[in-house]
Amino acid sequence: MKELAKNALAAKDFLATVTTEQKNRALSAIASALRNDAQSIISENKKDLEKGREAGLSQGMLDRLMLDSGRIEDIALAVENVARLSDPCGVVLDEIKRPNGLVIKKVSVPIGVIGIIYESRPNVTADAAVLCLKSSNAVILRGGKEAICSNTAIAASMRGALSGCGFDPNCIQLVTDTSRESANQMMQMSGVIDCLIPRGGKGLIKSVVENSTVPVIETGSGNCHIYVDESADIDMAANIIFNAKTQRIGVCNACESLVIHSGIIKKALPAIKARLDEKNVEIRGDERAQAACRGVLPASEEDFGTEYLDYIISVKTVDSLDEAVRHINKYSTRHSEAIITQNEKNAAEFLQRVDSSSVYVNASTRFTDGGEFGLGAEIGISTQKLHARGPMGLRELTTVKYLIYGEGQIR
Amino acid sequence: MKELAKNALAAKDFLATVTTEQKNRALSAIASALRNDAQSIISENKKDLEKGREAGLSQGMLDRLMLDSGRIEDIALAVENVARLSDPCGVVLDEIKRPNGLVIKKVSVPIGVIGIIYESRPNVTADAAVLCLKSSNAVILRGGKEAICSNTAIAASMRGALSGCGFDPNCIQLVTDTSRESANQMMQMSGVIDCLIPRGGKGLIKSVVENSTVPVIETGSGNCHIYVDESADIDMAANIIFNAKTQRIGVCNACESLVIHSGIIKKALPAIKARLDEKNVEIRGDERAQAACRGVLPASEEDFGTEYLDYIISVKTVDSLDEAVRHINKYSTRHSEAIITQNEKNAAEFLQRVDSSSVYVNASTRFTDGGEFGLGAEIGISTQKLHARGPMGLRELTTVKYLIYGEGQIR
Repeated sequence: MKELAKNALAAKDFLATVTTEQKNRALSAIASALRNDAQSIISENKKDLEKGREAGLSQGMLDRLMLDSGRIEDIALAVENVARLSDPCGVVLDEIKRPNGLVIKKVSVPIGVIGIIYESRPNVTADAAVLCLKSSNAVILRGGKEAICSNTAIAASMRGALSGCGFDPNCIQLVTDTSRESANQMMQMSGVIDCLIPRGGKGLIKSVVENSTVPVIETGSGNCHIYVDESADIDMAANIIFNAKTQRIGVCNACESLVIHSGIIKKALPAIKARLDEKNVEIRGDERAQAACRGVLPASEEDFGTEYLDYIISVKTVDSLDEAVRHINKYSTRHSEAIITQNEKNAAEFLQRVDSSSVYVNASTRFTDGGEFGLGAEIGISTQKLHARGPMGLRELTTVKYLIYGEGQIR
Repeated sequence: MKELAKNALAAKDFLATVTTEQKNRALSAIASALRNDAQSIISENKKDLEKGREAGLSQGMLDRLMLDSGRIEDIALAVENVARLSDPCGVVLDEIKRPNGLVIKKVSVPIGVIGIIYESRPNVTADAAVLCLKSSNAVILRGGKEAICSNTAIAASMRGALSGCGFDPNCIQLVTDTSRESANQMMQMSGVIDCLIPRGGKGLIKSVVENSTVPVIETGSGNCHIYVDESADIDMAANIIFNAKTQRIGVCNACESLVIHSGIIKKALPAIKARLDEKNVEIRGDERAQAACRGVLPASEEDFGTEYLDYIISVKTVDSLDEAVRHINKYSTRHSEAIITQNEKNAAEFLQRVDSSSVYVNASTRFTDGGEFGLGAEIGISTQKLHARGPMGLRELTTVKYLIYGEGQIR
């Protein structure tokens, strides 16, 4: 790890002076290399799959792990897409001329060295590396042990491409030790790693947040709510809820809980249930929800705090917008929440008071995503408030630096 | 602390909907209250001073602790100054219209609940509280035990003013338990405190960074360098170095180390020493620095990593700009560094490669300060890279929220 740290600092210094054109050439070279090395990457991936089957990984896990030529082509296309995005570094964000003649420029610059600790899917190895490269950051990647052969092959391919176009290959480094110890060491690399981004399940993220002395961007879990206001269009509500709950159940922006105004629940909940029944979604509600609609099972206090990632949804009945906001701010993970309403005043109050990264009026929570927001790429969705909140694109992989031009000024 | 947490969350919800005018009225009321309560604050301060004398605090510490009517008037004026600054919340930073008709607004919003852990100077109690209030953040203040009577009196005065104009007084809360335990509890208040800002000495900051699971903004220490390039104007160099080292020795933006090009050191160092001699600054240099100038004492490796905060400065001799940059990036705390040069190319390279919050050409490092940068106010100087870097003003006390306006869109 010491060698890795030294290499990362040298790569950071190298990246401080590369131009946009140089970076884009390197990204093209990486896309070509991944295509050229597809067969060897696939054969390394087969080893991971075999070990995974022996270890009894679920079908879903194995599918996420699997690479074929189509998926590698998708990765290469994604790399080329990143090359086309504009350079987030070197943007003059502010320019101040002081009465004493000092000129102060606030400029976007790379963060420096970024550490990514992630699980299973090997495409993250390429996706994260090229976003860091485009933003002139050196990256230290530490994937999971299930994907180690695939990750090693992908990293070798990318590093070869970097060397081939005059780049320090250590701009992209992979930690091949997949023990818990290597992750713990990364969390203590203050002075080397400037920012640590965990990507994966709740357990991984919790462990990084609790143990890291390096600044962390928490990505993550989404216990997302949809509030059906008294004035909601019921068809629209049912349609949005069906989409937000069932379009993809395993994602962080899926809806996990409904909050429904008592004045509309008797009409709204049966209509919503009729839609959710199409996919056999289990509905767990409080007493009033159970009374309002047949087939609603009882919800416990615990249900309201649960991100199911499954065909299950909870329902809370409220008597006011105020009660809805309080319930949501108590149980949400501050990811995405929506109000369905025809009342503009209520919409405005909901937008203002709900303390989440993305707050919707009359739309599905499933839109919280870098691509859907038009950011071009995404390295994660931040559920914390410092530095980045919501979908994180290239801009969020930069920091600022003040450049001050003087002619001998003293204080 | 549980009560404090509950109160902070309620105050956060209250602050989510207050207007700029309401906040400014509250700030005026706070300024008036502090003036009206000056005598009782001063008499509480006397208790702290007495205990401090008994405990053997240094004259410098006692001076920092002391409040008189002049200092309270300064605090009140600072509060009024904050009232005049523009509101950092509610600024639309970006507006995206998507092909599916969704309108996405990225808006600046309060962070929520901010915790400040600080030492000695009681003016921080008011300064930090009003910056948080102006940015619609609830604040939990935890000052040092030396200032507890003063802090309690100041907080009571401010809270009274808040109540008087219809505000939840818990927008400003002071932790009266000054044990280490109360600070540790704040560091674990995830879900309540959104951001923790330590202000004080190295030990305090290190402890918060290492123990907090709440996101932290590291403020702080400055091992600031000035590099005298081969092409430097020697008079300008001596003048800037004299200012940066001696104008105020105990501050984080004071210069602690010189890096001098070997091609100019024989001329430059004697001239620099002549100026520094005026204030009896001790110079500790490497062998070439000692050879270049009489009276330079030997420096150890440890000297280059030391923030003296004293009339001492270290000198490193280098043969190139590249070596200077490497030395600085190795030893600096990423606060403020300067190059003295007449060579524009070297200036540009130094600005680009030195990895610090504020990098100067031909000016004193002492300018790294919210006031000097024209930010209007400052809650600290961040030496980390996430969220805020360099002097932090009101804007850095906000985060963003995405507001998404739909008409039934689903994915």
